[in-house]
Parts: sequence; structure tokens; C-alpha cells
Amino acid sequence: MLDEPSENTSEPLTTPFSETSFTSPAAPATNSGKAENPPKRAGADERRQGVRREDHRYKILVRVACLLNSEMDLDRLLDLIIIEANNLLDTDRTSLYLVDADKKELYSKIALGIRQEIRLPLGTGLAGLVAVTGETINVEDAQHDGRAYHGVDREVGYITRNVLTMPLRNHNHTIIGVIQSINKHGKSFDESDIEILEAFASVVAVSIENATLRRDIERMFNSFVDTMASTIDARSPQTAGHSNRVAFYSQKVALELGMTPRQAQVVYLAGLLHDFGKIGVPEAVLTNPGPLSEAEWVLMRRHVVQTKEILSNMYFIGELKRIPLIAGQHHERLNGKGYPQNLTGEQIEFEAKILAVCDVYDALTVKRYYRNPLGAGEVLEYMSGLVGIEFDGTCMEGLARVVKIIGTPQNPTNDTAEQLYLQKDRNTRDYIRG
Amino acid sequence: MLDEPSENTSEPLTTPFSETSFTSPAAPATNSGKAENPPKRAGADERRQGVRREDHRYKILVRVACLLNSEMDLDRLLDLIIIEANNLLDTDRTSLYLVDADKKELYSKIALGIRQEIRLPLGTGLAGLVAVTGETINVEDAQHDGRAYHGVDREVGYITRNVLTMPLRNHNHTIIGVIQSINKHGKSFDESDIEILEAFASVVAVSIENATLRRDIERMFNSFVDTMASTIDARSPQTAGHSNRVAFYSQKVALELGMTPRQAQVVYLAGLLHDFGKIGVPEAVLTNPGPLSEAEWVLMRRHVVQTKEILSNMYFIGELKRIPLIAGQHHERLNGKGYPQNLTGEQIEFEAKILAVCDVYDALTVKRYYRNPLGAGEVLEYMSGLVGIEFDGTCMEGLARVVKIIGTPQNPTNDTAEQLYLQKDRNTRDYIRG
Repeated sequence: MLDEPSENTSEPLTTPFSETSFTSPAAPATNSGKAENPPKRAGADERRQGVRREDHRYKILVRVACLLNSEMDLDRLLDLIIIEANNLLDTDRTSLYLVDADKKELYSKIALGIRQEIRLPLGTGLAGLVAVTGETINVEDAQHDGRAYHGVDREVGYITRNVLTMPLRNHNHTIIGVIQSINKHGKSFDESDIEILEAFASVVAVSIENATLRRDIERMFNSFVDTMASTIDARSPQTAGHSNRVAFYSQKVALELGMTPRQAQVVYLAGLLHDFGKIGVPEAVLTNPGPLSEAEWVLMRRHVVQTKEILSNMYFIGELKRIPLIAGQHHERLNGKGYPQNLTGEQIEFEAKILAVCDVYDALTVKRYYRNPLGAGEVLEYMSGLVGIEFDGTCMEGLARVVKIIGTPQNPTNDTAEQLYLQKDRNTRDYIRG
Repeated sequence: MLDEPSENTSEPLTTPFSETSFTSPAAPATNSGKAENPPKRAGADERRQGVRREDHRYKILVRVACLLNSEMDLDRLLDLIIIEANNLLDTDRTSLYLVDADKKELYSKIALGIRQEIRLPLGTGLAGLVAVTGETINVEDAQHDGRAYHGVDREVGYITRNVLTMPLRNHNHTIIGVIQSINKHGKSFDESDIEILEAFASVVAVSIENATLRRDIERMFNSFVDTMASTIDARSPQTAGHSNRVAFYSQKVALELGMTPRQAQVVYLAGLLHDFGKIGVPEAVLTNPGPLSEAEWVLMRRHVVQTKEILSNMYFIGELKRIPLIAGQHHERLNGKGYPQNLTGEQIEFEAKILAVCDVYDALTVKRYYRNPLGAGEVLEYMSGLVGIEFDGTCMEGLARVVKIIGTPQNPTNDTAEQLYLQKDRNTRDYIRG
């Protein structure tokens, strides 16, 4: 889960592009208009001031547009939108609803500035109405407006005085959501507020569409890698679910050892991909129940080289470019007796050392044709005896701590791997960023 | 290749968000200031007008930010940037350079408003200098400025009078490129121009970063699907390169039949994926040189079901969601004698009918253990005899036209597939868009 909404702690964007080049006269602060009963239609002077204030807000809005469109994570983006909306409109709170076209519902990610999931049928309440009609609604007295829906207010113990509700439209003019500015400080929303929220809504819609699309493409990529890993493992019943588990353990170890989520994601993907070369190993070898002959071992060992070859043909971006290297070293050992390159100690990538311990740990804790699964404690003890010889000490410590947290694997089959899969979705963000 | 730059034909953004809500007094048009020798430092009145004009430009800039961030295609985005830059700064031309960090060079996608690739070492010319120092340079007399590089001018027969050169910085403040506004109409660039270009440069940098990242993630996904298709096909030497060729033919047929590039891209990916289920077919069957036994045919036919199963476990977005369905029907035949569902006529997806003809065409035009490859003409004639029985007539016509254009396959092996691969990169855009 994400942190609580942070609009009270984060710094809103109040400075323009750069202080030095900012040559406009100081615009009146947006909350300087807290006069009682401001006129609905301003006089000439007030209008001029209003225009300047409004234009100043456009200047801020350009900066906000850059900020929002730079945010890759959808949840963090939604938080940012709330902060900047309150700042720009000088409001107490903001609600943000997205359209779920399949279910014909609106769902809030953040309602009244509080992170909570609320679902409304399209057409219900002000937000639901705006999502259907596409017309902006400016309610000056929400307590006595029949269209307003007070369920959320009651739930969070809040009184909505006035509320400006507006559709979010994407580049095709399709309504993808609704934004609500709530309780303008000291007065009602005026025409300049409507205009600036309209501009802001355009920026918001574009940024949400982009973040959603990016997340979806990443998901598609991840699901593809995942599916292929499962499929290749499943060629031998003995290794079903293996890559998923190694990926899962390795990511946990990486995080446990203080790597960033992005670095841990590289390890995770390398774990999923580490046995892809097995696609080139004959089934007769993969499914041989007995101990392998020397000729069969040669074929089996070749899978590491093939993993590296296959991955090297792929186009990776950013930090993911190291994946072929890392995955290709998961059978190297500190003492140089691993394969395929007989690398030693420092020649082996740290991430490959993580994969190595997780790979062996999983292989020993599952059933094989020729033996029952070993217990986690037993396996860890055995592997600890090989620290400095085959395995890296830090990685072994990390693995031991992870095993302590997640417990001994119970009957780790494909099913377990699928359970792990469910847990890991929240970890598959953030790996793509330069 | 893309079209020529379109800045002379496209409509620049001159209207604000919506005419109805646009309540500001008409701001002076940006090119109303074409007075001779404008003062470097404006008086109070002029400054006020300048401020208002500048602020009006921020309003336009918000709209431009939405437009740029909605553009998914990098080349079209760069064209848009040039159009909007000229409009916003009231200039004759604009150059845009991107940093190639590996080669320590700047390369232009569009220089002096003309699409051309120019490479400059970092540090050379005004653009190269700004890319290194990060400082804006405003040159009022470019013909007598020692820092200016006149190579491009000479090449395109253009005289640069004045030029404002500014870095493009991403969200990490890394310089990712340089923008140059060239020949302000009637006067030099003033402080308000510098300020608005600074704001514009932020917007541009964010949009370029986003479009580049999105393109790279898509490339990564495509290369992964490609690599897996080649690897699975290669389990049998007889089918090496098959999926790549079927994908290539199918995409061409789809385009030939008037489908959009995006629709054709769905067909292309379905072609790459159509035999993924073969990963579950035993090698003994895949590599059996002789005619298959009935039991072997059962296993072989199962690959279609497995293709659909594997693909159904994947997360597809947008129009790609139909891929499991399409790929799962590539062995259905109009007369209901196909498999696995014995679908007939209209029950079969049109895209699956395209795959069907391309799949059979490729199988017959390559060498098999038991026969030499057949000629394209011979194969088309044979297949035409099955129109309305097994194959769709429109799809056959499309295939015949495509074969006429691309010629008979010469020794279609993996190498050919790789040549096809090189041709197809330009077709792998645009498939992801709601």
C-alpha cells in the first residue's frame, strides 16, 4: 500500500520557472480575495487584476504540467494532482474520480483529499452527473443542492460548502474522469476559477492517460516474461514454477540487502529470465529422472550460454541492459568452479551472486525425482558451509533473513509460484526510469 | 520514412482552451510588435503590455503542453514542437538538437526547420556550446558572432540574423538537447522571449523524454516477442523463421486490404505469436522427418489450443486484447474442417483468415524434409482452388498482391527472416493507443 495522502507535508509549486527571469509584477496572492461576498461580475479594475492573477496562474500551470507529466507512478501522480489543484484553486480539498467504462461507474482514488476507493454509478451525485453530461457544475451552496451526494462527506465527517465539478477529457475528448474542487477559501468559485480548472483538467487528463498507458505497457511486458518463464519451466515437471520462485526470492534478498526497488526489479527480471536457455535443452535431458550422464550434463550446462545468447538478442532499456550479463552468470561460483566462464570472486556480478544462492536454495527445497524436498533450515545450513567457496556471504545472510520472514516454502509447486505472483504486483513498478 | 516537415501546412495553436470561457481581454498578437528597433528595456506602459502578452503566451503554452504530451510518435512530436515554437516565439525557424551521450555529440532531428540529421561534437557551435555549459545564449547578430556555426546555414541557403539558444533539461536537470529559435520576426529576442522559451523548453524536454521512453518500452516488448518466436520456431530446423515470415506477410496483407497501421500491427503480433503453443509439443514430433502418425498429429494439433492458453494468461492492452482469439484460430477453415473448434465462415475472425493464408503459403514455399520448396506461383494457384472452401477470397487476393510486390521468397530461411526483420521496424509503431 502507499503512504497516506501527503498534501499537508509536500511543498506546493509556488515559484515560477526561475526567480531571475521572472519579470512579471507580483500578482496578488490567490487568497487575497477573501473579502466577504465578492462580486460575481468584477468592475474594470478588478477585472484587470483578476486577469493578471489568472494569467499568473497559467504561468504556474505550465510548471505544474511539466511536473505531472514527469511523474511515472500513477499513485504518486494522483497525490501530486491533489496538491497542485488545492494550491492553484486555493481550495481546502479536491476529489478525483476515474471512469470505469466496463462497469459504468466512477471510482475515486482520492476523494475529499483522502485516499480511499469509492464507487459511484455514472449519473449519481455531482461527479457522476458531470461524468455523463460533460458539463461543468459550479455549486455555491452544496448543502442545499439536490444533485450533491453527501455520502462521502458523512463518511469522513466533512462539510462541503461549495464545489466546482468538471470532466477530465483525453485527447479524443472522451471523458476519463472528474475533478472536484471543494471549499474555496473564503468565497465561491468565480469565472476565472472555472477557466483555470478547465486548463488544469486538460493537463491532468493527459498526465493520467500517459501514466496509465505506461503502466499498462510495462504490465504487458512483465506478464509476457512471466508467462514465458512459467511455460519454459513447465517443460519439466521438476522445475515447474522454479523461475518465478527464484525471481521472487532474489528480489526480496536484493531489497533486504538495501538495494533500491528499481535495482531489485532488475534482479527480479533476471531471475525470471535466468533459465530461458533451457528452451534449447532437449526434453530427454530435462526430464531424465536419474542422475545425468556426462554428455547430458554438457547439454544441461549449455542452457546458461543459451540464456545469455537469447537475452543478448533482445532490446533492453536503461538498467535492464545488464540483465543478459547477470542472468548468464547465475551458475558461476566464487572459487571459479562454476560455469560457463569459470569466473571467480569479484569477476562475478553481485546480482548474479544473489541469483546463485536463490537458485540453489529453491532447487534443494523442492521435490526431485530422486529425493524428497529438504527443509529450509537444513538447506541454509548446508549452503552456509559453502560461503566463500561457492556462495557470497552477504547474499547468504540476505537469503537467511528473507527465509526467516517469509517462512519455509510449503509444497512449493506451480501453485505456490502463483501465490507469490499475486504478492509481487506491487513490486513491479519503477524499474523503468533513466 | 516519414513525411516532409509539415510546419507550413499544419494549423498552429492560436485559440485558447475554449472560446466561451476565454474571458481575458484580447492580448496583443505576438507579431504586432514588429516595430523598427524596439527598445531593449521597455518603459512602464510597454512593460505592462509586454507582461500581458507574455502571460497570454503562458495560457497558450498550457494548451501546447497538453498537445505535445498527447503525441505518442517521436517524429510527429518533433514536428509539432517546431510548429509551436515558431508560433509562440514569432520566429521564422527553429532547430532542435538531441544529446547523444555515448558519442558525445548533438544530433539534429530538425535543423532550421528542415528535417535532416546533422551531427555536431558537444562544444561546437552555439548549440554544442549550450549543450555543454547549460547557459542560454542570445545572439543578436549571428553573422558576426564567432561562436555561431554557419555550416547548416550554408547547406540550406539560409541567413541567420539572430538566434536564441537554450538547453532542454529533463526532470533530473540533465541536458538532453538544445532548442534554437531563429530569426525573430522584425526584431531581436527580448527578456520575455527568453522567459517563454525557457518555459517551453521544459515542456519540450518532458514530452521528448516521455515519447522516447514509451517507444523504448514498446521496442523492448516487440524484441522480446520476436526473440521468443524465433527461439520456439528454431526447435525444429524445418520451421526456423516461420513465425517471423508469417507475421511479415500477414501485416503486409492487412495493409494491402486497407486496414490501418494499428490494425495491421495487431495482425503482425498475432502472426509472431501464432505458434507459441509449439513450445508444448514434444521434440520427437516437431522434428519427425516423415509423415506424422495419427497420434503425432493429435499432439501437433494441440499446439493451437496451447497457443491460445498461453496467450490468454498474458496481459494485453487495448486492441491487442484480441490477439489470443486471433492466434488461436489460425488453423480454422471456412468449411469447418479446421481445428481446434471447427468454426465456419463468419465465426472465424477476419484477422485469423489472413493468418491462415499466410501460414499455409509460408509452409509450402519453404523446404520440408520430404519435399523441395514449391514456387510462389504454384502455391498461389493451388491455394486459389481452395477459396471459399478453406480460404477467404479477399485474403487470398491480398496475399497474391503482396507476393507480386515483394516477389517470390528466395531460399526463405532464418536469414531471410532477419532481412525481413530489418524492414519491419518502421511498421512497429502506433499500435498502442486507445
